[in-house]
Amino acid sequence: MAKFKEIISNIENTNASLFQKDFLLTWNKSREELELILYVAEALRKLYKNNISTRCFDSGLAVSQFRDNSTRTRFSFASAANLLGLTVQDLDEGKSQISHGETVRETSNMISFLTEIIGIRDDMYLGAGHEYMKEVGASLDDGFMNNVLPQRPGIVNLQCDIDHPTQSMADLAHLRKWFGSLEELKGKKIAMTWAYSPSYGKPLSVPQGIIGLMTRFGMNVSLAHPEGYGLIPDVVELAGKQAAESGGSFEVVNSMDEAFKDADIVYPKSWAPFHIMGKRTELLRAGDQSELKELEKEALSNNAKHKDWECTRDKMNLTKDGKALYMHCLPADITDVSCKAGEVSAEVFEQYRIATYKEAGYKPYIIAAMMMTNRFYDVAELLKFLNKSNMPRVF
Amino acid sequence: MAKFKEIISNIENTNASLFQKDFLLTWNKSREELELILYVAEALRKLYKNNISTRCFDSGLAVSQFRDNSTRTRFSFASAANLLGLTVQDLDEGKSQISHGETVRETSNMISFLTEIIGIRDDMYLGAGHEYMKEVGASLDDGFMNNVLPQRPGIVNLQCDIDHPTQSMADLAHLRKWFGSLEELKGKKIAMTWAYSPSYGKPLSVPQGIIGLMTRFGMNVSLAHPEGYGLIPDVVELAGKQAAESGGSFEVVNSMDEAFKDADIVYPKSWAPFHIMGKRTELLRAGDQSELKELEKEALSNNAKHKDWECTRDKMNLTKDGKALYMHCLPADITDVSCKAGEVSAEVFEQYRIATYKEAGYKPYIIAAMMMTNRFYDVAELLKFLNKSNMPRVF
Amino acid sequence: MAKFKEIISNIENTNASLFQKDFLLTWNKSREELELILYVAEALRKLYKNNISTRCFDSGLAVSQFRDNSTRTRFSFASAANLLGLTVQDLDEGKSQISHGETVRETSNMISFLTEIIGIRDDMYLGAGHEYMKEVGASLDDGFMNNVLPQRPGIVNLQCDIDHPTQSMADLAHLRKWFGSLEELKGKKIAMTWAYSPSYGKPLSVPQGIIGLMTRFGMNVSLAHPEGYGLIPDVVELAGKQAAESGGSFEVVNSMDEAFKDADIVYPKSWAPFHIMGKRTELLRAGDQSELKELEKEALSNNAKHKDWECTRDKMNLTKDGKALYMHCLPADITDVSCKAGEVSAEVFEQYRIATYKEAGYKPYIIAAMMMTNRFYDVAELLKFLNKSNMPRVF
Repeated sequence: MAKFKEIISNIENTNASLFQKDFLLTWNKSREELELILYVAEALRKLYKNNISTRCFDSGLAVSQFRDNSTRTRFSFASAANLLGLTVQDLDEGKSQISHGETVRETSNMISFLTEIIGIRDDMYLGAGHEYMKEVGASLDDGFMNNVLPQRPGIVNLQCDIDHPTQSMADLAHLRKWFGSLEELKGKKIAMTWAYSPSYGKPLSVPQGIIGLMTRFGMNVSLAHPEGYGLIPDVVELAGKQAAESGGSFEVVNSMDEAFKDADIVYPKSWAPFHIMGKRTELLRAGDQSELKELEKEALSNNAKHKDWECTRDKMNLTKDGKALYMHCLPADITDVSCKAGEVSAEVFEQYRIATYKEAGYKPYIIAAMMMTNRFYDVAELLKFLNKSNMPRVF
Repeated sequence: MAKFKEIISNIENTNASLFQKDFLLTWNKSREELELILYVAEALRKLYKNNISTRCFDSGLAVSQFRDNSTRTRFSFASAANLLGLTVQDLDEGKSQISHGETVRETSNMISFLTEIIGIRDDMYLGAGHEYMKEVGASLDDGFMNNVLPQRPGIVNLQCDIDHPTQSMADLAHLRKWFGSLEELKGKKIAMTWAYSPSYGKPLSVPQGIIGLMTRFGMNVSLAHPEGYGLIPDVVELAGKQAAESGGSFEVVNSMDEAFKDADIVYPKSWAPFHIMGKRTELLRAGDQSELKELEKEALSNNAKHKDWECTRDKMNLTKDGKALYMHCLPADITDVSCKAGEVSAEVFEQYRIATYKEAGYKPYIIAAMMMTNRFYDVAELLKFLNKSNMPRVF
Repeated sequence: MAKFKEIISNIENTNASLFQKDFLLTWNKSREELELILYVAEALRKLYKNNISTRCFDSGLAVSQFRDNSTRTRFSFASAANLLGLTVQDLDEGKSQISHGETVRETSNMISFLTEIIGIRDDMYLGAGHEYMKEVGASLDDGFMNNVLPQRPGIVNLQCDIDHPTQSMADLAHLRKWFGSLEELKGKKIAMTWAYSPSYGKPLSVPQGIIGLMTRFGMNVSLAHPEGYGLIPDVVELAGKQAAESGGSFEVVNSMDEAFKDADIVYPKSWAPFHIMGKRTELLRAGDQSELKELEKEALSNNAKHKDWECTRDKMNLTKDGKALYMHCLPADITDVSCKAGEVSAEVFEQYRIATYKEAGYKPYIIAAMMMTNRFYDVAELLKFLNKSNMPRVF
């Protein structure tokens, strides 16, 4: 781990600021802003390891709104809030969709009188999650401008239908550590591939987040999936454009083997096809249980044709020196462990298990960095102040 | 907003103390005690805006017990606790009524060993909510006197069957700000009127809280509802008595137009008639689902006869210069927005939307003031100390 | 209550350390380690009463995982965490059993990146709860050794299938206070007896915890239950061995009267027989609802044969001078109060009600002591530092 001074210097050199900017999609952030998050997360981790308190709020709420189940992101969000001195208050609206714009506007204000950060997971409805977050943001703007709110809380996207930035940024932090630097990522091949799973309906946000982020860093990104398992076309198009700009490359192939070939990194993970997710969204909205069951049956039977999309030792042998880094957002569907046939063989997963845990371990700091950069104008100064104060985290 | 010194001076001039007194009903508090809450809330808000920490607990629990759904009061309570340094722990007993006195006595003690404040919402059962809070209070007295508890936690009524003091006090703070002072409220006409809603079973505590509080301040309070939609008779009687004492007036009319006429303030809000709520309580207790459905049907069909009880622009034109302040505890049933036909037209609500949000914004500070005055003997000294300490809330 | 200096001196004299040791079973702890917990709990209580902050964490999570309902342990855990400056984050997995070793390993790490303490209640499945806690512990060891976790969180058993150490240690603290010292417990007779209850399926961990702990302190422990209501044989055997070693005695009798005879302390409490719990575990695992109903019917009809196992005034008259101390972990099934016929008569319970509340009042401090001794190498030094710092808990 770099020295604290170097990290601060890195932060200052970005010349970037995310002050009062919501973090919704990585591709709406500049390269410098993304680096800022990485460095601030690194600084927070450094201070944590040195048992130095990073508390910068004496009070204040961090509201979480999970419109889908979550364990690790929930804990990461809670850890991040706690690290900075914020208290989590969960907005539990059940599984129902808030249906009227008016109500979103009102609720957003009602939960925000003393709130600093709102973290939202809303990934079930294609075309809805990101829109919802923007609506919350506009509602908060309205409330702040009209003196309803003494501050305008920042929004952190904890997974929407389009992107999963806290995941992809944690993944990026992991890659940076693994390969030594962001520079080292240039020219590395990453295979973001679909993999078989006995469940269906998994969101598209992870693969989209990966291709939408890694194409920013000069990597050669290979997206692989069976025919008919495409992602949101706009995001795929964007990935291609970004790859060209950053000096990397982007391809879409229909073969796991092809993607794995000479890959430095593999990210095999199941998702539901774009058109299925679209249909599912319609049926969920209509509350049509019998059609949903039909759709699930159809989707699962489609999936079953692609059981060979499993990350096995044989597949891994296709990668660069047979030694590609295996990544996953967890939990993985592990063959013979969590299911009969899944995304990855037990052998491969076990080999990289600790690495995937470490990958997940970046998330609390990434989220804390998103919170901190949103709330503080000069984060480098704040971190220096915290380091100098040297208040012990544990007595 | 007044200067901090003036606010402190106001607090000192009340000569009132709420130290170790539960806050259950506004009409059991003296005028000075009510003012004390307003001023302390104002001071807390002032310190918040000046980024000065109001943390006065290093540890301690604030227990919340919601026997009915809540979003805004839940967040207000959480915000208030957080503002003072308390941690919320929710007592989640499901929807079941605790049926034996013994159990209330036991539970009250078991949750209170390190607890400073207990906030309770219990508004579903007529004749039960306020009684429950008193029973909790007696149980805590018993535990404290017998050395079971190292301190006797204070109780804050977060809405019972009779009163909703955190709402009505927030409303009063809003009115004080809107009209400039409590003195200015003298002689102002407020129309607390029933309004049509497509739902039923809404508690009586808001209208009761309003007529029970505003009659203390020399206002001319007009309570309006269709025949058969009366409130608890004792509270209505009390309102009349209080109005006479404070130099205001109180009337009950059966016409929304009459109440609106020349009103300075209107508060149109649906509620279920007293006798319906009584019957409903019996059926809820008996768990008689089919009779409950019958009752709902009957009540809704009764409501439907009064769809003209809607706060429209035409109705607003009846008020003083057509410019009365519209108030609501939120969420309102807004015609064409949250329902087909409701309490208020979209046009009128939109005109006053920001005002109602601001009205709601007083609640966290009002609750914090109730907590603080309950726990600290000399609140003025404490607030001065906090101001002088000048510890930043956000670094 | 002893002077603070004396308590510290007691702590130092134990020469014991529980630093980084999970607290799962009292019988795996040395006598000195158990005393350490008692003294640290006493010190924390002393500081609390003197309004001195015992906050020793500036941030950090205390994760709670309740696989069975809980009110008082939940509040005790929350209070303990709060007392030390930790924030509770609940791991809510519903009622489902985590079925795969892999998943436990992963989940344990995922919730632990910034976690100091994990408290677990898992008492429903015989043969599973304690095993689960050990598996969590091994998973955390694995994560810590592999640099996944920056610290290895400590585990506190909040009730498993075998032991309920936070309860039994709180009970011991209560007895120490009641009789003046641990020395005074030598030779005292405690009757841990089964009692009738109209419910079934109550865990064995309380009676096992009591016989497993009190036999360490030279007490004469009499375990009484109807034939066929035995506890886990290993624990019963252990109790006998421990009693012999500590200079006390241990007997198992099938008569409540015999156990009560000349007892100094009685602890009448219902539980489900070992073999029934075993069968129940199998059926719960199989999800066999109809067989579970059959089993419940059979168990309740067996229970009904022993309605005379009720702690009445007549039974109490059998104890030493008719004045034995009545104990219960609460809530008790009280005849004519919480049920028609239960574990204890209303008269006896009312006589000792306050005493049982006080008994429960030790739990937050016991849990806080388990947390603190797990996280800090030199607890005596820490407590002295906190006392000297003299930071007010409430301003």
